Amino acid sequence: MDRHFQTLIQKQWESKRFLCVGLDPDLERLPTSLKTQNNPEALLAFNTSIIDATRDLVCAFKPNSAFYEAHGTDGWRVLKETISYCHSVAPDVPVILDAKRADIGNTNEGYVEAIFDYLNADAVTVHPYLGGDAIRPFLDRREKGIFLLCRTSNHGAEEFQDMLVDGRPLHQVVAEHVHATWNTEGNCGLVVGATRAESIGAVRSLVGDMPILIPGVGAQGGDVAASVRAGKNSRGDGIIINSSRSILYASRGEDFADAARRSAQQLHDAINDAL
Amino acid sequence: MDRHFQTLIQKQWESKRFLCVGLDPDLERLPTSLKTQNNPEALLAFNTSIIDATRDLVCAFKPNSAFYEAHGTDGWRVLKETISYCHSVAPDVPVILDAKRADIGNTNEGYVEAIFDYLNADAVTVHPYLGGDAIRPFLDRREKGIFLLCRTSNHGAEEFQDMLVDGRPLHQVVAEHVHATWNTEGNCGLVVGATRAESIGAVRSLVGDMPILIPGVGAQGGDVAASVRAGKNSRGDGIIINSSRSILYASRGEDFADAARRSAQQLHDAINDAL
Repeated sequence: MDRHFQTLIQKQWESKRFLCVGLDPDLERLPTSLKTQNNPEALLAFNTSIIDATRDLVCAFKPNSAFYEAHGTDGWRVLKETISYCHSVAPDVPVILDAKRADIGNTNEGYVEAIFDYLNADAVTVHPYLGGDAIRPFLDRREKGIFLLCRTSNHGAEEFQDMLVDGRPLHQVVAEHVHATWNTEGNCGLVVGATRAESIGAVRSLVGDMPILIPGVGAQGGDVAASVRAGKNSRGDGIIINSSRSILYASRGEDFADAARRSAQQLHDAINDAL
Repeated sequence: MDRHFQTLIQKQWESKRFLCVGLDPDLERLPTSLKTQNNPEALLAFNTSIIDATRDLVCAFKPNSAFYEAHGTDGWRVLKETISYCHSVAPDVPVILDAKRADIGNTNEGYVEAIFDYLNADAVTVHPYLGGDAIRPFLDRREKGIFLLCRTSNHGAEEFQDMLVDGRPLHQVVAEHVHATWNTEGNCGLVVGATRAESIGAVRSLVGDMPILIPGVGAQGGDVAASVRAGKNSRGDGIIINSSRSILYASRGEDFADAARRSAQQLHDAINDAL
């Protein structure tokens, strides 16, 4: 399978798709009919329904590894099968594994192998704190997307990410540093939460046309239109707007897949209206 | 199983044990006799031999999750069985899972469940960048040890961790912040690499008697005596000195377990000499 994240996402953007659906299945919130199955199978059945219902509306899918690891080896298998299902029914849609990993040097090779070779994800989210040499094994995979956490959508992001370094918030320093120094293979992106559109705009002004993954719309309350306008690049694309809960749990009833599609369609339209 | 990390580690320190063995098995580096087994079983056989050979010399074992995740669901199972074996043959020795995780808010609950309830680790390493609210699900597990990455042992740690914030390196700001604000349950620790003893001393002066996990002696070249002297707290303990490769691969022959024990004994002695 010869896949290249940048090529895949660019094609999606050219088709005016900027929405990313977060595949974060929570057993407690599944529709009743699925809960009667064995747990891991219920997660997979839920995911495949959501993927089928939204795959022509999205530029990417983004499973978050925490939701799978909670279920041990079964969860790990469901994660692999979920990504495999995405590739099978939506081969042009890249899968970003929201794993928020980062160790030092050669230890990362284990994560790289797990995420890119075992799970076959097209992109990954990574913590920047350990430095560029530490995450080099990720960066060296030029056909993949490497999204560095920059400014997250939670309240406590202020504690360190907004600390002033030479008069500028740390997350802007991280953004500029990733753009200027780490992006030698042209495969870096940044994660900037939608909860503060002004942060997105400030980061965009520092990183050229680099992709920005923007979580935090929907359940977390980020403003879609403001995020889109602040985040788009000089080509009018470069943004991946993620929503998880507002799509996955648009309905808790047996119509959950239809409701997910309606919710995804609304968000897709809102993004394109803002552009 | 009623286990409490702080109690377990304090008892080890009172018995003058400060060495932590990193259980980071690399298939490429296993002795030939083990390589003939199926891969995941070889990892487990190697780990149990190392655990048996060193368990009376250590204050903790520290498997790094990357080495297991590289092998998919089999690796995840071997990780669980490794931790289970530690608890079974060395019930007084806490197990620190070097997972370097951190997501935001409720997403971390998946990692907490995976690491503490499914894998039964006694402690975990966590990235600080996302802030205290983000890692609250970890901090709320008061019976566990939560080690925040502070100053890592790699060269590129300088890039962000040593940036000056109000005239002080960021990693010191992180250390002070964890000590002053996040440690409400008394279960926090810090990770400070052995490659710069002066950083360990500076962090120790900011965090009272808080445990400091010190990787980077051995293969990475950190100075044992300098690290021990800089890191010990007012009680003459509070340090967990980790070595992985210099113990695991002390010999590549069939005497690997005996060689691992000799290497562990030397490091144990060197630590106690320095104290």
